[in-house]
Amino acid sequence: MQELKDRIVKEGKVLPGNIIKVDGFLNHRIDTVLMEHIAEEFGKYFNMDDVTLILTAEASGIALATVTAHHYGKPLVFAKKAKSDNIEGGLYRSDIFSYTYKKKVTLIVSKEWISPQDRVLIIDDFMANGEAMRGLIDIVRGAGASLVGVGCAVEKGFQGGGDRLREAGVNIKSLAIVESAQPGNIVFRED
Amino acid sequence: MQELKDRIVKEGKVLPGNIIKVDGFLNHRIDTVLMEHIAEEFGKYFNMDDVTLILTAEASGIALATVTAHHYGKPLVFAKKAKSDNIEGGLYRSDIFSYTYKKKVTLIVSKEWISPQDRVLIIDDFMANGEAMRGLIDIVRGAGASLVGVGCAVEKGFQGGGDRLREAGVNIKSLAIVESAQPGNIVFRED
Repeated sequence: MQELKDRIVKEGKVLPGNIIKVDGFLNHRIDTVLMEHIAEEFGKYFNMDDVTLILTAEASGIALATVTAHHYGKPLVFAKKAKSDNIEGGLYRSDIFSYTYKKKVTLIVSKEWISPQDRVLIIDDFMANGEAMRGLIDIVRGAGASLVGVGCAVEKGFQGGGDRLREAGVNIKSLAIVESAQPGNIVFRED
Repeated sequence: MQELKDRIVKEGKVLPGNIIKVDGFLNHRIDTVLMEHIAEEFGKYFNMDDVTLILTAEASGIALATVTAHHYGKPLVFAKKAKSDNIEGGLYRSDIFSYTYKKKVTLIVSKEWISPQDRVLIIDDFMANGEAMRGLIDIVRGAGASLVGVGCAVEKGFQGGGDRLREAGVNIKSLAIVESAQPGNIVFRED
């Protein structure tokens, strides 16, 4: 998606540790107009009529997933991290390793809000090692629901998470795949 | 807001510890149509032409704040909890006590994304003791920005957080203020 790639080149910053910082429009400050354009773009790759539920993980995926759910008139569920006192009863859960926080976190979704009849599109803002995506897919499968696909805005291709999911047969579409990132030189995978 | 109150009565659950669970439409599964109606309602109470930025706190406030920001064509910033490796440089921060997690958390916003010129509307899904709101207001003031107001969907009036902010002169509007909550009997404050 050229508009997204242009924003990454223009406004993104490359930090030590292969961190690509796009927090001016994607995951701290949110450009809601760009989110709408990304939501429209996902409609080219997934049959939204077939989707009953949009699923994401807190926190930074929520904004993009909300706009996508709103755009297509779907409900949104976001997986929470760890256990809060506000969730009673049965939970679907998946343990993942968070590279951001350097520790294990558990993604949880109440069994009330995802059913075997659901056809789920997972949406997230960012994918690196793919741990959050793996956890969300675990939860979809644990619920006996169907996975329509995975839509991601920015994928760090060189960290391999997206390709592992592709090899596993997941229908995944990332709108900008970064193959290498050096300050002043961000290279994208060809579409 | 009658539609919101009706949903709380119909779908909300009262749990021990005065917890009002509205996670079927507000803060775990998100009804994006209701979020749009809530966003429209905020427009009756705040002059959106005067607002340059919508601010919320992760995680559960993000969905409503995103729809509100999108509806009025504003950027959104969400305060993060604690420090992640993805935030460099200067931060505005405020320590709050999280009753959900029973511990101190620090709300942080990068100094890049809020400026003294900003006129900020804080949006959150839920207010009980008002700690998150207090922290967000701290951050607005720390940035030297102007606080237009605070819009909240559900306020637990009996926990006093909202009234403390009103007494402090904050322009706060909650669309459903719960005065008492017993299973099967939720009483709202009169508008």
